[in-house]
Amino acid sequence: MSAAERVTLKPGDTIGILGGGQLGRMLALAAARLGLKCQVFSPDPDSPAFDVVQYATCAEYADVEALERFATDVDVITYEFENIPSSVATILEARRPVRPNCRILETTQDRLIEKDFVTSLGIPTAPYRAVSSATELHDAVADLGRPAVLKTRRFGYDGKGQAMIRPGDDLVAIWDNLDTRAAILEGFVPFEREISVIATRGADGQVVSFDVTENDHRNHILKVSRAPAAIADDVAARARAIAETIANALGYVGTLAVEMFVAPSDDGLQVLVNEIAPRVHNSGHWTLDGASVSQFEQHIRAIAGWPLAPAVRHGSVTMTNLIGDEVHDFPRWLTVPGATVHLYGKREARPGRKMGHVTVVTGGSEPTPS
Amino acid sequence: MSAAERVTLKPGDTIGILGGGQLGRMLALAAARLGLKCQVFSPDPDSPAFDVVQYATCAEYADVEALERFATDVDVITYEFENIPSSVATILEARRPVRPNCRILETTQDRLIEKDFVTSLGIPTAPYRAVSSATELHDAVADLGRPAVLKTRRFGYDGKGQAMIRPGDDLVAIWDNLDTRAAILEGFVPFEREISVIATRGADGQVVSFDVTENDHRNHILKVSRAPAAIADDVAARARAIAETIANALGYVGTLAVEMFVAPSDDGLQVLVNEIAPRVHNSGHWTLDGASVSQFEQHIRAIAGWPLAPAVRHGSVTMTNLIGDEVHDFPRWLTVPGATVHLYGKREARPGRKMGHVTVVTGGSEPTPS
Repeated sequence: MSAAERVTLKPGDTIGILGGGQLGRMLALAAARLGLKCQVFSPDPDSPAFDVVQYATCAEYADVEALERFATDVDVITYEFENIPSSVATILEARRPVRPNCRILETTQDRLIEKDFVTSLGIPTAPYRAVSSATELHDAVADLGRPAVLKTRRFGYDGKGQAMIRPGDDLVAIWDNLDTRAAILEGFVPFEREISVIATRGADGQVVSFDVTENDHRNHILKVSRAPAAIADDVAARARAIAETIANALGYVGTLAVEMFVAPSDDGLQVLVNEIAPRVHNSGHWTLDGASVSQFEQHIRAIAGWPLAPAVRHGSVTMTNLIGDEVHDFPRWLTVPGATVHLYGKREARPGRKMGHVTVVTGGSEPTPS
Repeated sequence: MSAAERVTLKPGDTIGILGGGQLGRMLALAAARLGLKCQVFSPDPDSPAFDVVQYATCAEYADVEALERFATDVDVITYEFENIPSSVATILEARRPVRPNCRILETTQDRLIEKDFVTSLGIPTAPYRAVSSATELHDAVADLGRPAVLKTRRFGYDGKGQAMIRPGDDLVAIWDNLDTRAAILEGFVPFEREISVIATRGADGQVVSFDVTENDHRNHILKVSRAPAAIADDVAARARAIAETIANALGYVGTLAVEMFVAPSDDGLQVLVNEIAPRVHNSGHWTLDGASVSQFEQHIRAIAGWPLAPAVRHGSVTMTNLIGDEVHDFPRWLTVPGATVHLYGKREARPGRKMGHVTVVTGGSEPTPS
């Protein structure tokens, strides 16, 4: 990194956050503890992150003037969602360092490019094929078998932009329904469990990862995360090494999450990469209460050019998302010993909407250095 | 408490904080985690608490219109400093519930009234005499002996508004220099250690206290706090019972701190009350990292009418204040295992100014329920 690109913030400097959801809100809270200010840019007037910063911009991402003013007001820029239009990235990067850098998004915004990248590092993924027509879909399914999952290469999340392909399904209908020319077919992985590793790579290249998290999804949305994952030490070490390799190969600065499968194979258990999220991640929220430093603070330290903290877990941790109406249940968690309630300040409890989470820490045995 | 005075906030409601220092800042951060908004009222344009809230009022406490608008904008009001003029309290209380209620300040803003109140509960304090003239000072010193400490009854803090009286000192000169008609003479306490108890009393009257904290001062300013204090269990129990009695007797809602001395006496160790702070307190900052809930969150829960959390300590905790220039040292703490750095966002590192603190948690043995 050249001297011109090096970022070293001092307390009182300002971080610009693109996006105003709960991830941005929690990033701003972590920055505040370190005496760093944040400004938030988001088109949503009800952005959760607006509540916790003195200055915010509510404007569309297409509002070039607003983006330029935002960039001028801050010392470094980061983002809390990965589907930033490249035009936005270009405008911002012309004025201020963006961390992690936007070129990473070219890899992570496209499932095919992402899988090619991961496999190029010698890291296994689910089997996959590029698909750009009904014919290619037919060939891909013949290759990988059923069941399989057809996904748009870009813009899908939480189960949207994808379709299961089961025995007997009409491929032409599925292809028409997905309505894209850029798709990927992923072979089914009979996984034993889904895990993720939250890792942070600092400006100096140091990588610190947290203990492996085990994740239970419900209707494609994360419901419960547990740390440490109930996996053997060697499997955990492999997973963390994978995240470290990816962070280094991307030249990443900040916190990222690598979602993986643990699946049986002929040689014992295999760890396969599912997806990379170039941001703080729901499966890392447990670190706010269950570790000596949170994924949010590590991200702030990294983009500020500060050294990372050692990540020490306290005991066994379980995080439960409060989704939609479940949030009305939060009062009963207030008196549970070891429980910490986090509410995101969203007004409307729509179905499937992440309204908050509860983390329970138990055990608290001798801290486990990572 | 009548139904009209009962406060039960819901997520999305707003707490008004009078005062914009680091205590207000940390209260706002704690409220944010619970999905509660805060608005800050402070005359200081550089208020640390302004950074972390969307709406703030920068106006003098004498600005009645500004106070009224502030009160109308929020659902409940609290304060982060105890020297609120009674006129301000009157204006605010006419419009919104103030928690803890302002009548408590009549007791805590006056050292004489406070000591009379504590002793009326059967709780010991340092020996003391009211002093309103040079003659009364002479008689009081004859009673209590030297050394002794002469303090103004109101408005002193961190060593200001007080004078040591040592053998040979000229009492008339000291009296003239203190320049007041309302003073109190406190007899010297040969204490073994200074401790404090941070306790919270909820809207329903439940009191939860944290483990006793041991405090080291330097030039009248807190420098280091340790929890748990190195005292015998029965002494700790006595100290916590004292704090609970005071909170109940005051009909207090919120977090308070009771500073005490542990001093030798003919019957073993005695616990004497030194001062009551009707607010969150520097000696309770360790709870942010060393306990399952912080003093700030407990205060927010109490004033919101929510139940308190059980307060469980994680291991041994040491908090060190970063005062004045010491704050420039903060980078070396960033990589110490178990250390959490807190910076208050203040621009100027003036001598004696609290710029931040560092908390180190070690051990993390089985959590100790309180």
